[in-house]
Amino acid sequence: MTFQPLVSLIGGGPGAWDLITVRGMRRLQDADVILADHLGPTSELHQLCSVDSKKLIDVSKLPYGHQVAQEKINNLLLTHAQSGKKVARLKGGDPYVFGRGFEELQFLASHGVACEVIPGVTSAISVPALAGVPITHRSVVHSFTVISGHLPPGHKDSRNNWEALAHTGGTLAVIMGVKNAPKIAAAIIAAGRAPETPAIVIQEGATTNQRGYRCTLGTLAETMKTHNIQPPAVYVIGDVAGLSTMSLSSEEPASS
Amino acid sequence: MTFQPLVSLIGGGPGAWDLITVRGMRRLQDADVILADHLGPTSELHQLCSVDSKKLIDVSKLPYGHQVAQEKINNLLLTHAQSGKKVARLKGGDPYVFGRGFEELQFLASHGVACEVIPGVTSAISVPALAGVPITHRSVVHSFTVISGHLPPGHKDSRNNWEALAHTGGTLAVIMGVKNAPKIAAAIIAAGRAPETPAIVIQEGATTNQRGYRCTLGTLAETMKTHNIQPPAVYVIGDVAGLSTMSLSSEEPASS
Repeated sequence: MTFQPLVSLIGGGPGAWDLITVRGMRRLQDADVILADHLGPTSELHQLCSVDSKKLIDVSKLPYGHQVAQEKINNLLLTHAQSGKKVARLKGGDPYVFGRGFEELQFLASHGVACEVIPGVTSAISVPALAGVPITHRSVVHSFTVISGHLPPGHKDSRNNWEALAHTGGTLAVIMGVKNAPKIAAAIIAAGRAPETPAIVIQEGATTNQRGYRCTLGTLAETMKTHNIQPPAVYVIGDVAGLSTMSLSSEEPASS
Repeated sequence: MTFQPLVSLIGGGPGAWDLITVRGMRRLQDADVILADHLGPTSELHQLCSVDSKKLIDVSKLPYGHQVAQEKINNLLLTHAQSGKKVARLKGGDPYVFGRGFEELQFLASHGVACEVIPGVTSAISVPALAGVPITHRSVVHSFTVISGHLPPGHKDSRNNWEALAHTGGTLAVIMGVKNAPKIAAAIIAAGRAPETPAIVIQEGATTNQRGYRCTLGTLAETMKTHNIQPPAVYVIGDVAGLSTMSLSSEEPASS
């Protein structure tokens, strides 16, 4: 804590600003400039964390393709840091859970700019939790896997072995997998996991717009279609999704 | 946020108190009584989060076996809640990542006591991050699995399929696996994962006592023995453990 890097890579948590860490909040308060992805309501950031929204730059609005936007973000981070400003890089969830955070740290390090990481609450675990589903439960599972579903099973660039993922014995939580949900569910079933395995899908978890629906692995894709699930969404497949002491409905989110 | 349950199940984060969430900190400040596991220095909780340490009860010191202690904790939560107190149940990491949190919620619900969960930063992701290792990195992995290593491979009560876990294509992070590390590493190698796969082990991550050592899957058990690694520790197996822009040594933790 005595070492003060020039750039702080901060996990903002799953959607409600008061689920950021205390350390993250303090860095945002101290920063001269904040580069943020996918800002929610900035009034809430101001209200819940006393962060001055005037110093916020929403880099998700950069009007370029994904890779170009990333290069522009890297250069903005570098330019602000080299001009002597305290820079906060605010990301959703945790910076290292499919967040390209380490790429930014590597880029800054290659230019001699010190960067610290402040972990955040990842949506893969917290969104199900806030909808009433624990990612683990004693004697039910001893592992859970968080999967990026942005590439369909069988895609040449995918690093996921869906055959193995279907058989870990643990919970599966998929993020960034709305579009590919039908193919992902089919691949897991084809690998041998029972279609009756409990599942839940949650859109915009941890926010006041949260909607969650319980289903099974076999009905997941249809459930998502019926309820017109849109990103950001998380789905969980495994026996933990069948555990509950609460009821879920689209009218009344389980807890928020 | 308008709904105020009687008991708040709070994730305290990986070890440094300022890695608790803002929401969690506020519930601790508002609580009448706090039941906490494995307290670190309470002066730090007071200093970093302005939480009055006088209302803390360290339930990890209950002088009984594990199951009896859990029953005693459940009853303490219930008694305090039923007497009209605002109760905070403070756990390390995230309450639902092998934390028995959902058991406590179920127990309270069965007695008509409303309980909210406030997610926390899990040590499985944040401890490697703070030691310089990202749990994911673009084009390297598209999944990661968090595993409880409290039971050895092949144990009759284990829900882990190590054969499948070895082949997911993603990062593996093991917590509560110090004692069983030799058997776990051997099982992953026997299943076909290369002994040269990069690995890292970190003891007491996120604290000032943090010690981290890079190694490989094949040398993990020996590295842990050589450096006398004791719980709490996390180890990560996968190509991400070979990525770095920082150096690690036992004398100088990578970042804290």
